[in-house]
Amino acid sequence: MSTRQLISATAAKPPFFAGVDLGGTNIKVGLVDDLGRPMSWVSVPTDPRTGPEDAARRMGEAVLESIKQAGAERERVVRVGLGSPGTMDIPAGKLLEPPNLPGWDNFPIRDRVSYYSGLPVSFANDGGAAAYGEFWVGSGEDFRSMVMLTLGTGIGGGIIVNNFSLDGEHSHGAECGHIIIDYQADARVCNCGRKGHLEGYASATALMKRTQEALDSGRKSSLSHRLDNGEKLTPILIGMAAETGDSLAEELIMETAMYLGVGVVSLMHTIDPDGVVLGGAMTFGGHETELGRRFLQRVKQEVDERAFPIPAQKTVIDYARLGGDAGFIGAAGIARADYHREKG
Amino acid sequence: MSTRQLISATAAKPPFFAGVDLGGTNIKVGLVDDLGRPMSWVSVPTDPRTGPEDAARRMGEAVLESIKQAGAERERVVRVGLGSPGTMDIPAGKLLEPPNLPGWDNFPIRDRVSYYSGLPVSFANDGGAAAYGEFWVGSGEDFRSMVMLTLGTGIGGGIIVNNFSLDGEHSHGAECGHIIIDYQADARVCNCGRKGHLEGYASATALMKRTQEALDSGRKSSLSHRLDNGEKLTPILIGMAAETGDSLAEELIMETAMYLGVGVVSLMHTIDPDGVVLGGAMTFGGHETELGRRFLQRVKQEVDERAFPIPAQKTVIDYARLGGDAGFIGAAGIARADYHREKG
Repeated sequence: MSTRQLISATAAKPPFFAGVDLGGTNIKVGLVDDLGRPMSWVSVPTDPRTGPEDAARRMGEAVLESIKQAGAERERVVRVGLGSPGTMDIPAGKLLEPPNLPGWDNFPIRDRVSYYSGLPVSFANDGGAAAYGEFWVGSGEDFRSMVMLTLGTGIGGGIIVNNFSLDGEHSHGAECGHIIIDYQADARVCNCGRKGHLEGYASATALMKRTQEALDSGRKSSLSHRLDNGEKLTPILIGMAAETGDSLAEELIMETAMYLGVGVVSLMHTIDPDGVVLGGAMTFGGHETELGRRFLQRVKQEVDERAFPIPAQKTVIDYARLGGDAGFIGAAGIARADYHREKG
Repeated sequence: MSTRQLISATAAKPPFFAGVDLGGTNIKVGLVDDLGRPMSWVSVPTDPRTGPEDAARRMGEAVLESIKQAGAERERVVRVGLGSPGTMDIPAGKLLEPPNLPGWDNFPIRDRVSYYSGLPVSFANDGGAAAYGEFWVGSGEDFRSMVMLTLGTGIGGGIIVNNFSLDGEHSHGAECGHIIIDYQADARVCNCGRKGHLEGYASATALMKRTQEALDSGRKSSLSHRLDNGEKLTPILIGMAAETGDSLAEELIMETAMYLGVGVVSLMHTIDPDGVVLGGAMTFGGHETELGRRFLQRVKQEVDERAFPIPAQKTVIDYARLGGDAGFIGAAGIARADYHREKG
């Protein structure tokens, strides 16, 4: 489900842009108008095993379907934005060896999606696309520059400076989950296999691991009973336990916020953005829940203690606002920025 | 002494730019041609106690003196670049509360130097200016983007992306010495008073502190004898001990390189630049000495272990090349970039 209200083709401001959010499981495609308002969206399975050429064809078809569903004239759609997981070579428009898309190595995805959609394609990292969406019409719409962390199984990142996504020279910019927060030899191991990275402490994977370790070491928690009853350890279960007064769950979640705060300080002292936006599934309900509000508060507290006074006071730290739509809206936004730049 | 060969006004390519490198002790001013070649330089004491207005007047006079010394026509000098220590508000052209320039709070330094020199002034952070110098005509001249760390009493930083110094929204970008490498409660305290920052581990201050701690804890070293004989503990003394086979000194210096490598990885995973340049006094002779070469090698080794394979392979990590001239050359380079942007 799109969390955004859709706007009709007659009320929308042309030109229009199609945004493609390619994930390991699903591909979400939506048509977006020149003001960043979604006009339609469709979702199709990624089905990586059928291979990248077949998926590129389905992405092209989904673009055409999103245009049809929006009731838009084909000529008003001028460009496609494609946000994809890495690894990738953004200037070359190629995937390299994407771990979440096995068998898609070295695929020239930008040009193949362009072929099947009949439109020029702007190619971006999925983290950069989500950040651009929040920057354009989400939490960051008043910011001149922004850092976004997407909290989930891993920790994704996006950095927007001078209206560009900071892709880096080797398409490895804004890998914010992989900044180091602990230099020591006994630091935790990240999902990527290296030591001391933020993702090894503050991702959903890390929270579950740290919780399991605490339970194994004999810490008391209502979670033990639930797990004995066959429930599965998830961030949602840990969040529910915290909300019902489980002090271990509360402690581990607030510790997660502390780790994030440490990472946010390093990003602030590097980029010094107007704002830092936290998105993704592992935000414990965000502003909607008391736990989500305390989580954000704890991140800010850590920033206050560790950052220079001026950025600590002035940098806005907030939750994302576009939910699962950030990816396709942001991909469309990157296509729009390229389009307007080319038009001059 | 300038380490660069000076070029004559007749051989130089106009227009010319004056670069001012304002330090807590000295002000270095030089005239630079359109290709980044220094034509002259002068140094005057900062003498912060006489106040900022008097210093601004001396900076203006030094600019005129540098033009005279170069034998350049006044009309060919089109702009001044001023690199200054912070804290500062770069867009406003103001110092805020610079700790190294006591009593200079809230001084509109850009406009006052412009008044006394009779030229428009581009205002920059000293770390950004040094980085721009290396990027323009130093170690980074082949890079499209670059991160620089200046290793001394503290650790300064500069980041160049899209031919701009990344100043940040609150003039606190590229504070690379203040990214966090240890989140823990017992982390070392930085010169800035906060915990876990890179500068608290890898600056000259930190190296001396860690050495003193090791000696106090009873570690054996030739340094003990030297200190007993009244020598003062300095990074140079520690470096000399390492070069003559002192294993404690060697260990502490290589540990410093390890800390730096950790910080460099965080910067690489954020900016993903073409290159990282290490400058400043605490580089143990750089490429000129065996110790300097081993120091750089140890930084690279840490990067290889902690960074993603593609940036680890492709990112150049090297020493700076302009020495103490980077500041004024880079300030002139920032003035030049502003000049050519305005000309269109």
